[in-house]
Amino acid sequence: MSQSSLDNLYISKAIQLAKKGLYTTQPNPRVGCVIVLNNDIIGEGYHQQAGEPHAEIHALNQAGDKAKGATAYVSLEPCSHQGKTPPCADALIAAGVSRVVCAMQDPNPLVAGKGLEKLEKAGISTRSGLMQSEAEAINPGFIKRMKTGLPFVRVKLAMSLDGRTAMASGESKWITGEYARADVQKLRARSSVVLTGSGTVLADDPSMNVRVTSAELNAHVDLHQPLRAIIDSQLSVPLESKIFKQSGQTLVFSTQVADHAITMPSRGGKVDLQAALKYLADEHQANEVHVEAGNELCGALLEQHLVDEIVVYIAPHIMGDSAKGLFHMPGLQKMSERIDLEIKEIRPIGKDWRITAVPQ
Amino acid sequence: MSQSSLDNLYISKAIQLAKKGLYTTQPNPRVGCVIVLNNDIIGEGYHQQAGEPHAEIHALNQAGDKAKGATAYVSLEPCSHQGKTPPCADALIAAGVSRVVCAMQDPNPLVAGKGLEKLEKAGISTRSGLMQSEAEAINPGFIKRMKTGLPFVRVKLAMSLDGRTAMASGESKWITGEYARADVQKLRARSSVVLTGSGTVLADDPSMNVRVTSAELNAHVDLHQPLRAIIDSQLSVPLESKIFKQSGQTLVFSTQVADHAITMPSRGGKVDLQAALKYLADEHQANEVHVEAGNELCGALLEQHLVDEIVVYIAPHIMGDSAKGLFHMPGLQKMSERIDLEIKEIRPIGKDWRITAVPQ
Repeated sequence: MSQSSLDNLYISKAIQLAKKGLYTTQPNPRVGCVIVLNNDIIGEGYHQQAGEPHAEIHALNQAGDKAKGATAYVSLEPCSHQGKTPPCADALIAAGVSRVVCAMQDPNPLVAGKGLEKLEKAGISTRSGLMQSEAEAINPGFIKRMKTGLPFVRVKLAMSLDGRTAMASGESKWITGEYARADVQKLRARSSVVLTGSGTVLADDPSMNVRVTSAELNAHVDLHQPLRAIIDSQLSVPLESKIFKQSGQTLVFSTQVADHAITMPSRGGKVDLQAALKYLADEHQANEVHVEAGNELCGALLEQHLVDEIVVYIAPHIMGDSAKGLFHMPGLQKMSERIDLEIKEIRPIGKDWRITAVPQ
Repeated sequence: MSQSSLDNLYISKAIQLAKKGLYTTQPNPRVGCVIVLNNDIIGEGYHQQAGEPHAEIHALNQAGDKAKGATAYVSLEPCSHQGKTPPCADALIAAGVSRVVCAMQDPNPLVAGKGLEKLEKAGISTRSGLMQSEAEAINPGFIKRMKTGLPFVRVKLAMSLDGRTAMASGESKWITGEYARADVQKLRARSSVVLTGSGTVLADDPSMNVRVTSAELNAHVDLHQPLRAIIDSQLSVPLESKIFKQSGQTLVFSTQVADHAITMPSRGGKVDLQAALKYLADEHQANEVHVEAGNELCGALLEQHLVDEIVVYIAPHIMGDSAKGLFHMPGLQKMSERIDLEIKEIRPIGKDWRITAVPQ
């Protein structure tokens, strides 16, 4: 096997390890690392949760003295700055590794190539940019936040085959089957924030919490409840709602002033959604925002180009055209104005189907 | 290989041959036949078009004298009655075959086991019911018409991912891409009737004809234009519409009396759809009716349980909830009343996706 093929193999292993942190690293990125000497994996690790050692440190600890002269494969460029833990670049230098291969540069402006530079200056040879798209795919939120200051927004929808998400009366339990609903729990669990609208809270009084356990997700540390957030422009949601009674925190974004609300700029009488998302990124280091809401909020997010991914569960039913649609976008009246999607994946979940699509 | 496995193999071959008649046998069923002697295929054939020889005759002609003592595999029970051509059972007896295996009994009440009986009486051993569901799948229309007196109704729809088939203005060109539209041509071509509603004719002035050629479909005989039919309860469609100017015949079903219309019983002021379908089966031996229509006609057909299959092309777009839906069913107001579907197939067609579903 050529060195290039071996590099791909070990980077792929590092990416697999990174995925073990899918549900627990917030606000940090998911990162995995393997250390290889003479074609033998002598150390491996992944980042589990913020404040605890980074992937490289776990892997170096496992490798011990053997790390001298070895190659470290990391799914993300080693950090060069002092955060809650010391810089990993320093640790790799101290351990005496001779080569560092990483899938991608760190999009964090505090790092952004400086980790690799530090290693090079210490006489360590480096390579970057292997399986980069695979590595990027595990940290869509962290990357977007670092690059743009906004979180990655994933809108989850459940609909009948004819595109309906609730009856005209608001009745919507349940559009999809238990397997799809269990899958949604995973989407919530990987997110930093679960965002909904006042209409959904008033209609359904949902808990919007994560009810799956870390054991069910094969996570090795406890799950944190994602932050919950409600867009409640006119402060119409009662504080007795279930969403406020779950463990963890629930934010209320409003254009109004109130003790329990965060007052946001108004856009046409409603909360400026981009400002609310920016607040979540700035104040809560939110990487992935998971949206479960009605056609008003989903439509507004889509119309304002704030949606990064749409996950639609399609149930094998017809609900008829008096039932409610997914996206209320009054400005969209011509075929030429419709929003193009790229379909990333279609797969069965129980009797339902899940489509993952990206607005273009 | 056991005799049973060989039987499956040759029946499967007969079914494949039958499919060659997919676009041309109307109003007859698609049938294929292979004749096997000492594990050697000595004749094969399929029914091409009404008035021409049946599959068995083509295969017997190819086998010639060798048919004596051979086994005939047929995808449908050989006919025992005189139609436009003499009974195939007689031809098989005359050729001296020793065994006949068929995938399914003929649902035609004129045959329905009598073909097999005739063969048995002539000392030929028979076997029936191999790969029956595969054999049934190629003749859904013929089977349904023979069993119920109604045609098989396939509703074709094109929608955005959010379940919209036209903008509020009626604009709908084009929801899907060219590959999906070419696929629809095949669905039209295999049908006996293309059915639409007055609303669609008034809004789009469509031709509703088959524009694909027999060569493009690998058909060995010329295609016939399917009959076109319009549900035009109040006779609002002008006779200058394009649909009347295509080769072949266009029927108009109305509750009103007019020279160019077929007057049907009324159901709530509109054409009784079951009566219109029955007319198409009785008077035109329609096996498969292909529906391309708006939400009114599609909704009424579904609500009245007259739809056998829904083929939905999903385009990777969002059109928003002021755009038009697929099925107008004012009676459907509760989740418990929604119509269950069985999803038969999901597959990509260019950039679009095709879902085939069966109402339960």
